[in-house]
Amino acid sequence: MNIRKAVITAAGQSQRTLPLQTLVDRDGQTKSALMILLEEALHAGVEEIGLVIGPGDRDAFRAAAGGHAKRLHFIEQSEPLGYGHAVLCAQAFTQEEPFLLLVGDHLYVAKGPKACARQLVEIAAAESCSVSAVQATHESKLPYYGAVGARRLQGQAGLYQVDQVIEKPTPTIAEQKLIVPGLRAGHYLCFFGMHVLTPSVMSLLEAMMRQADGGVHLSNALAQTAELERYLAAELAGRRYDIGVPYGLLTAQLALALNGQDRAEVLANLVELLAQS
Amino acid sequence: MNIRKAVITAAGQSQRTLPLQTLVDRDGQTKSALMILLEEALHAGVEEIGLVIGPGDRDAFRAAAGGHAKRLHFIEQSEPLGYGHAVLCAQAFTQEEPFLLLVGDHLYVAKGPKACARQLVEIAAAESCSVSAVQATHESKLPYYGAVGARRLQGQAGLYQVDQVIEKPTPTIAEQKLIVPGLRAGHYLCFFGMHVLTPSVMSLLEAMMRQADGGVHLSNALAQTAELERYLAAELAGRRYDIGVPYGLLTAQLALALNGQDRAEVLANLVELLAQS
Repeated sequence: MNIRKAVITAAGQSQRTLPLQTLVDRDGQTKSALMILLEEALHAGVEEIGLVIGPGDRDAFRAAAGGHAKRLHFIEQSEPLGYGHAVLCAQAFTQEEPFLLLVGDHLYVAKGPKACARQLVEIAAAESCSVSAVQATHESKLPYYGAVGARRLQGQAGLYQVDQVIEKPTPTIAEQKLIVPGLRAGHYLCFFGMHVLTPSVMSLLEAMMRQADGGVHLSNALAQTAELERYLAAELAGRRYDIGVPYGLLTAQLALALNGQDRAEVLANLVELLAQS
Repeated sequence: MNIRKAVITAAGQSQRTLPLQTLVDRDGQTKSALMILLEEALHAGVEEIGLVIGPGDRDAFRAAAGGHAKRLHFIEQSEPLGYGHAVLCAQAFTQEEPFLLLVGDHLYVAKGPKACARQLVEIAAAESCSVSAVQATHESKLPYYGAVGARRLQGQAGLYQVDQVIEKPTPTIAEQKLIVPGLRAGHYLCFFGMHVLTPSVMSLLEAMMRQADGGVHLSNALAQTAELERYLAAELAGRRYDIGVPYGLLTAQLALALNGQDRAEVLANLVELLAQS
């Protein structure tokens, strides 16, 4: 399976200015969050990127994409009909190909030289099926994420066969349906904000949109995928940082800096600030 | 002297997106850098704010100003003719009144409850003359700032009579002309990015613009002000953070957080990140 396309969603009402924020990347270069995200996808071997944006945001995003703008296909989500609908808006772009899906309000910091998206794309290419990146997450954070019920694949560390997908489960539901043997107590496999999906997910979303009254969530389509075809979850060597929460940009920037070339300079700054405060 | 107006300059090519960046303020609220700056001015008692912007930036700045947009007068600087020219663009707005002048690429964190701009405005109101905020700054940073030569005022801590103003002096020039008795060795009084100026500074800028071939710097007009009238410099209880340098936003955000209501939460975050990195 060859993954040539990526879709990044950035049309959510609260997310629309996040990709335009400025950060210093691990390489010491000042960039927009969008550029960092585009480079995450490009380093995974993706050639074209469909960017799902809100109406009227095209110019700002094109400017924030800098030299990567030529790889972009802008896709407007004209109505706020949920995350599943935002993904479905990219159907004409992805057509019959598998694609890497990233959310526009997360940044990723890999442990080691291989970017998170590249790790995920390599797994999906080898396994030839949909794969969602997941992270073992404490139950207190279940209200913020989709979570999966899954079984470990024998002999493949960090790789799981997904049986169930539930969006923002309650702790009771999670305990009944989503316990994964081998994880720390009270921890569940929650989405990392990064998937490789086959075109069949688009067809499922399309069918659900036809039946739905209002919005459609991606997790519902992924729950069906788990029933219909081989669908894996993978723990990657790295962390996700949600830049849409309070202090999210601060935390992401610190994580980039502490894992980047300017670590010593930033640590020195930090000590000075702590001494002053 | 009653200071009812403020001017904020944000038209510099590298500064145009800085006020649109998002930070969490000391009160725990997520705001644009512009909103934090506008509140700095409003808390100083200012009623109207002239915002000097680049062509085409009006809508983005109006959105970033949120509920404070109604206090704003947008002033376009159509050509990049230097900082002095940017200030002069606001002459029709300030008219014959003194005004608080802030740069759009700095944020301020006061030590204590009284905002830096408020401290400065109170000094200027009491002394009825132009006053520039200054900070004792190591000579290694002279290439980034305007600096003043000054004498301490007897019995008034942190207040100086300015004799000279030199923009970005070399260490040799600084040593010859700008040594201020009582400062630590190798330190000079550099601008803080915040002034209260009398209308005569506008007249000086206007005369200089007529004679100049290219751009005009504010420091040149302030150097003339020091010759012509009483002109003070004040060390404020607080620090300035240049958000336009690499890691400037990170440092400013940390300074706000460590001096704000979320200090404990942010410190805990910091320790966790350091443990992971």
